Amino acid sequence: MKYLKKIKPLKNLSLVDKVEIRIIEFLKENNLKVGDSIPKELEFAEALGVSRTVVREAILRLRTLGIIESKKHKGMVLTEPDIILNIEKALDTKLIGEEMLKDIFELRLILEMGMADLLFARKTAEDLIELDKIVKKEEKDLFDSTIFSLEYEIRFHGKLYEMSGNNTLQRFQNLLLPVFQYYHDKKLPTDEKFEYSQKFVSHRDILNHLVNGSPESFRNAMRQHLEPHFDRVLNWIKA
Amino acid sequence: MKYLKKIKPLKNLSLVDKVEIRIIEFLKENNLKVGDSIPKELEFAEALGVSRTVVREAILRLRTLGIIESKKHKGMVLTEPDIILNIEKALDTKLIGEEMLKDIFELRLILEMGMADLLFARKTAEDLIELDKIVKKEEKDLFDSTIFSLEYEIRFHGKLYEMSGNNTLQRFQNLLLPVFQYYHDKKLPTDEKFEYSQKFVSHRDILNHLVNGSPESFRNAMRQHLEPHFDRVLNWIKA
Repeated sequence: MKYLKKIKPLKNLSLVDKVEIRIIEFLKENNLKVGDSIPKELEFAEALGVSRTVVREAILRLRTLGIIESKKHKGMVLTEPDIILNIEKALDTKLIGEEMLKDIFELRLILEMGMADLLFARKTAEDLIELDKIVKKEEKDLFDSTIFSLEYEIRFHGKLYEMSGNNTLQRFQNLLLPVFQYYHDKKLPTDEKFEYSQKFVSHRDILNHLVNGSPESFRNAMRQHLEPHFDRVLNWIKA
Repeated sequence: MKYLKKIKPLKNLSLVDKVEIRIIEFLKENNLKVGDSIPKELEFAEALGVSRTVVREAILRLRTLGIIESKKHKGMVLTEPDIILNIEKALDTKLIGEEMLKDIFELRLILEMGMADLLFARKTAEDLIELDKIVKKEEKDLFDSTIFSLEYEIRFHGKLYEMSGNNTLQRFQNLLLPVFQYYHDKKLPTDEKFEYSQKFVSHRDILNHLVNGSPESFRNAMRQHLEPHFDRVLNWIKA
């Protein structure tokens, strides 16, 4: 059960932890929705038999998670939490350890391999024209298109995420960018020497599959395009 | 720029928001690492020229995000935030709106299509034996294996996530389960009538690809297996 590693045993819960859990249960039991008002600090304190300070701290946590906000004249109301914003803040601290960074880097490869069907179902003529512009600019700027340029990678792949029509996926990709930068800056010495047996698949090739191919042909092209990254991922030792 | 929808304009930042941002900047500028102690509340208050109450609230937020914790005799120290736990708390509230639920449901399909290469690189003989047991039990319990049983879906696909060797992915899948349940309970009337043109691909078929096939053949089998879900996803209208 290693994926539950950070959930505290019940006996270690602080009073604030318990109050936080009770308030969340209260919201669920009463089937409260976004925009609904919730009881005042004092009412929670009386109902739960704890001090206002404890309730205040628990509510502050729910506020931080984006579950509650204060509205003028309405008091505290429920709000839809912005999950991605919370991840963003945590990632921003640079406190993420090596194992988590590896997981996240792998996640990027998984997402790019997995989004083919959404891309084919949702691509528009405008999208393809814009993607063509991105590739043309890249071809013009770089004599040797096999040189890995992070900026062009981000522009091309970022457009694909946008085309997926999945807003959460797109915001997720946005906040993963620093992780790519990290691995890009931290190239292994062996990276340069590695000889790729398969033909290099360029952004132009991928675009051609998007225009004339199928989700299946796109996935195979993307897999080859991502070969240097997969090569790193499939060879590293995980804890 | 719709993916930045919830980031507040600078002028709307409260004093606590500003102090929170300054403290995060301070951690980054000083290159502080997990386990390092940070200054006391009073020191932050004096350095920033704000009240201790404001600093306390900002620090409480960082504590909620899992960036800071209090240690006996060491005061406040930095800790690696548990990103997944924060998402879990937010999802747990049932305040997630329809659009986000759709995004998350799509994300599951993307992940299952995209993880093939990791599965082939990391599968072990033990994994395959366990997966075979899961499928055998399913075949024994269900006379008609085309009946969609959520329990068997979770057991089989959950094992695949575990085999990916990506701890973050696995925990992520775990907390997505309520979303699958939601869509499972909320079957559209058209779901039953839909005629699938492609051959139904069972868990047994997918397992055979894992044993004897390639990442490519696995992806194609998985795509067919997920057809009823993709059919729903590719037909819904997104905001």
